[in-house]
Amino acid sequence: MEQKLAQLKTMLGEASDLYQIEALLGWDQQVNMAPGSAESRAQQMATLGAIAHDKATSPEIGKLLEALLPWAESLDPDSDDARLIKVTAKDYDKATRVPSSFVAEASQVIAMANQAWVKARSESDFSIFQPHLEKVLDLKKRYIAFFPPADHPYDTLLDDFEPGMKTADVKAIFDALRPQQVELIKAISEKPQVDDSFMHLDYDEQKQWDFGVKVATAFGYDWNRGRQDKSPHPFTTNFGIDDVRITTRVYKNQFATALFGTMHETGHALYELGVGKQWARTPLANGTSLAIHESQSRMWENLVGRSMPFWEHFYPELQATFPEQLGKVSLETFYKGINKVQPSLIRVEADEATYNLHIMLRLELEIALIEGAVAVKDLPEFWNAKVKDYLGLTPPNDAQGVLQDIHWSGGMVGYFSTYALGNLVSVQLWEKFKSVNPGIDDQMRKGDFSSLLSWLRSEIHQYGRKYEPQELVQRVTGSKIDPAPYVRYLKGKYSAVYGL
Amino acid sequence: MEQKLAQLKTMLGEASDLYQIEALLGWDQQVNMAPGSAESRAQQMATLGAIAHDKATSPEIGKLLEALLPWAESLDPDSDDARLIKVTAKDYDKATRVPSSFVAEASQVIAMANQAWVKARSESDFSIFQPHLEKVLDLKKRYIAFFPPADHPYDTLLDDFEPGMKTADVKAIFDALRPQQVELIKAISEKPQVDDSFMHLDYDEQKQWDFGVKVATAFGYDWNRGRQDKSPHPFTTNFGIDDVRITTRVYKNQFATALFGTMHETGHALYELGVGKQWARTPLANGTSLAIHESQSRMWENLVGRSMPFWEHFYPELQATFPEQLGKVSLETFYKGINKVQPSLIRVEADEATYNLHIMLRLELEIALIEGAVAVKDLPEFWNAKVKDYLGLTPPNDAQGVLQDIHWSGGMVGYFSTYALGNLVSVQLWEKFKSVNPGIDDQMRKGDFSSLLSWLRSEIHQYGRKYEPQELVQRVTGSKIDPAPYVRYLKGKYSAVYGL
Repeated sequence: MEQKLAQLKTMLGEASDLYQIEALLGWDQQVNMAPGSAESRAQQMATLGAIAHDKATSPEIGKLLEALLPWAESLDPDSDDARLIKVTAKDYDKATRVPSSFVAEASQVIAMANQAWVKARSESDFSIFQPHLEKVLDLKKRYIAFFPPADHPYDTLLDDFEPGMKTADVKAIFDALRPQQVELIKAISEKPQVDDSFMHLDYDEQKQWDFGVKVATAFGYDWNRGRQDKSPHPFTTNFGIDDVRITTRVYKNQFATALFGTMHETGHALYELGVGKQWARTPLANGTSLAIHESQSRMWENLVGRSMPFWEHFYPELQATFPEQLGKVSLETFYKGINKVQPSLIRVEADEATYNLHIMLRLELEIALIEGAVAVKDLPEFWNAKVKDYLGLTPPNDAQGVLQDIHWSGGMVGYFSTYALGNLVSVQLWEKFKSVNPGIDDQMRKGDFSSLLSWLRSEIHQYGRKYEPQELVQRVTGSKIDPAPYVRYLKGKYSAVYGL
Repeated sequence: MEQKLAQLKTMLGEASDLYQIEALLGWDQQVNMAPGSAESRAQQMATLGAIAHDKATSPEIGKLLEALLPWAESLDPDSDDARLIKVTAKDYDKATRVPSSFVAEASQVIAMANQAWVKARSESDFSIFQPHLEKVLDLKKRYIAFFPPADHPYDTLLDDFEPGMKTADVKAIFDALRPQQVELIKAISEKPQVDDSFMHLDYDEQKQWDFGVKVATAFGYDWNRGRQDKSPHPFTTNFGIDDVRITTRVYKNQFATALFGTMHETGHALYELGVGKQWARTPLANGTSLAIHESQSRMWENLVGRSMPFWEHFYPELQATFPEQLGKVSLETFYKGINKVQPSLIRVEADEATYNLHIMLRLELEIALIEGAVAVKDLPEFWNAKVKDYLGLTPPNDAQGVLQDIHWSGGMVGYFSTYALGNLVSVQLWEKFKSVNPGIDDQMRKGDFSSLLSWLRSEIHQYGRKYEPQELVQRVTGSKIDPAPYVRYLKGKYSAVYGL
C-alpha cells in the first residue's frame, strides 16, 4: 500500500504542478500581459487546462484511490496519509462525476455570460444579462443533478466553496446574525457621523505603496517566496506553497484602498505560505475553504489593521509619511474615520458593520433562484426590496444593484456566503487567540505580530485542506461557526467609535 | 490528406501551446520570481517539459508525418503546407533520435555544470569547471552519434542552432573575414583614440529607460503584443507570435548598456512579432535561425542605432534629456564615442570591429575540442594564445578569459558562430534594402523606420522557419552568407570615425 500511496503522490504532484502553472498563466494575464495577447493566452490555458484535468481525473488515480480508501480506514483518521486519501478521493469523485462535455459547455456559457455582464453593468441594463444568467442558472441545476441528492440542492453548490457546509447551517447562522446587525446599524445611524474627510485627500501613490509594503513585512509576509504587483482587482494567488503573490491597486484620493487592500491580501498570502511542507504538490496544499481564507484576510485587515493598538504603533509613521494630509489629524479622529459606518449600495465598499447584510441578501436570492421561488427576470425587483429592507437604501440603477458583482457571470453561485462566514470565523479565532495570548494589544503597540502569526500557523495554516472548515473551527475554538463573537466584537468596537 | 494535415496541425498546436507556456515559466523566473520559489519552479518546468516533449514526439505525429511526407512531395515545394510538413518532419526526426534517458542525463549534467561554472568564474578557477566541461563534451559526442554521419561531426551541433549550415562553410567564411578584420583593427590602433568619456557619467536610470522605450516605439515595437521588463541579462522571449517580450538592464554610469541593449532586443522582438499569422501554433512560428535572428538585432542596434542619420534625428532629444551630461558634447563627438574601437577581453562588451574575432576563436576551439585536437584541460592555454594572436591582449585570469561565457556550461556547443554570421547577414540585408530603398538615410533623419520594418517583414519576418537561413539569405540578396559586405561596411564606417 505504501507503494500505491507513493504512486498516487507522484501523480497528484504532476497534476498539482500543472494547476500551479495554470495559476501563473492567470496571474500573468492580469498583471503583465498586453491586451493583444489575450487570444493566444486563452488557447494556452485551454490546452493546459484539458491536460491538467485529464491528469487529475485519470483512471489510474481512480484505481489507486479505490485500493487505498479501505486501507486509509485502518490508519489513524487524523493522520496525514488518511486525510490525503480522503480529501483526494472526494475531489476525484467530484471531478469525475461531471462529464467533460458539460465542462466545455459551461466554459462557453460563462465566457459569454461574462461579456454580457460587462456590457450590462456598463449600460446598467439588466435585460442584457438576463438570458445569460438564465443559462448559468440552468447549468447550475444540471450540475447539481450530477451529484447524489443532498438535504438541499444548494448544498451541492456550497460544498464547492465551503466543503461540508450545509445550506441549513448557513441560514441558521445568518438568521441569528441579521437582526442584531440591523439593530446595531440603526443605533449607529442615530449618532452623529464621524469625520473621514482626511481619507479623500491626495496621497502620493508611491508612498502609499511603500507604506503597504512596510505593513505587509511587519505582518510577516515572506518576500523571498512572493511579490506584490499592481492589478485592477486585488487578489492573492499561489504557484505552490513557496510562491505566493499578492496584488493591490492604488488610488490617489482613496488611500484606504491600497492600505487595507494590502493587509487583506497579505492575510490570504500568510495562510498559503504557512501550509505545511508535507502538503507540497498535493491537492491539500491550499487553504481549506473560502470562509477560512477570508477569516485570515479579514483578521489582518480588520481585527489587526483597523484596531487602535495597531495604529498606536503605526500612526506616527503614517503621519510622518503624509504630514500635509495627516499632520493635524489626531489618532482618535483617524481611528474613527477608518472605522466609519455608513450603509452603502456597493458590497466591496461596505464597512464592517454593514458588510454581512450585503452577503445575506445575496445568499437568500441565490437559494430562491435555485429553489425556483424567484425567476431571473424578477431578480432586480427582489434585490432592490432586500436592499431597502436591510440597508434602508434604494439602488438608483441596476449597475449599483443586482449587476454590481462579477460572481454569477462567472458561474460562481454558492460563493457569497463565505465572505460573511469568514468575518464570523475571524472573530472566533481572535477571541481564542486572545485567551491564550492576552498580551497581543501590547505586542501590536510595538509593531510585533509574530505571536499572532505563529499561532495562526500552528492552529490553521499548517493543516492546508486536511480538515474541513467546520471541523477546523471546532478543533481550534471548541465550537462550530458561531455569530455571537462577531456581534460582541461589533458592539464593543462601535460603542467606542460612536458612543452607543 | 487534408484531414491528416488538419490533425497534424491540431497536435502541433497543442505542443506549441505547451512550449509557449514553458517560455512563460522561464521569463517569469528571470523577471519576477522570488529566489525562494526556485525549487517549485524547477519541478513545474520538469513536469511540463516532459509532457511537452511527449506531445511533440508522440507516435501519432510520427504516423501522420509518414503519411504526409510523400504527399508533400507532390505539392509546390515552396507552399506553406509542403514546408510545414518538411520542417516538422526534420524536428520530429531530431527529437525522436535522442532517447529520453539521454535527455534526462543531459539535464542533470548541465545543471551541475552550470553551478560549477558560476563558482569557477567567480573564483576564476578553471579547474572547478574542467571536469564538468569534460562531461558536457562527452555528452555532445554521444549526441552526435545519434545522428547519421555528417561531413564533419561538428555539423550536427551547428545544425541545432543554424539549420543546414556546414562547418566547412562557416570556416570558409571566417577564413576570408579574419585577416581583413585583424588588419582593420591594426589600422585603427595606429590612429588617435576617440573620446568617449561622456558615456561613463551618471545618467538617471528612469530617463534612460524612458528614452529606450521611445526608440523601441519608433522602431515599431508593438506594445499591444509585448512589454519590457528589467532582468540581469537582457533577452527576448515569446509565448506565441502575439506575445513577444523584451528585457533590458540599466546601469547608471554606462548609458550605452540600456540604450543599445533595448535596440538589440527590439530587433529580435520585431522578427518574432512579424512572423506570418498562418504559422501561429506551429513549430515554424519562430525566427529561422540564431544567425538570422542576430542579423535583425544587430541591424537595429548597429546599422540603424549607431548610424549618423539616426542620431541626427535623436541626438537633440537625447541632449535635452541629459543636458548636464551631453549639453556640450557635439553630435560628431557623440557619434565617434558610441563607435569607439578598442580590443578588449570580454565578448559582450566588444565593439563592432572586434566582436567577430571573439567569435572566431571560440569556433576554432569548439571544433578542436570535438575533433579531439585540444583537450579540455589545455583549453585556457589555447584560449589565451588565440586572444593574444587576434586581439593582442593577454587575459589576466580565466574569469576574463575562457570562463567568461555561460554557453558551454549550458551544453550549448555550436552556438557562438551564429553571432558573427548574424553580423555578416545584417549588412548583406542592409545593402539589399538600401538598393531598393535609397532614401533610408533621409527617412532615419526624420525618425521614420517604417519602410525598413515593412521590408524586413515582407522579406524575412513573415516566413518564420519556412526557409533555412542560407536559402533565405540567397532568396533575399541573391547570394549565400558572404563576409564581403560586412568588411566594406566596417571599412567605410571606421574610415570616417578614425580618418583611416
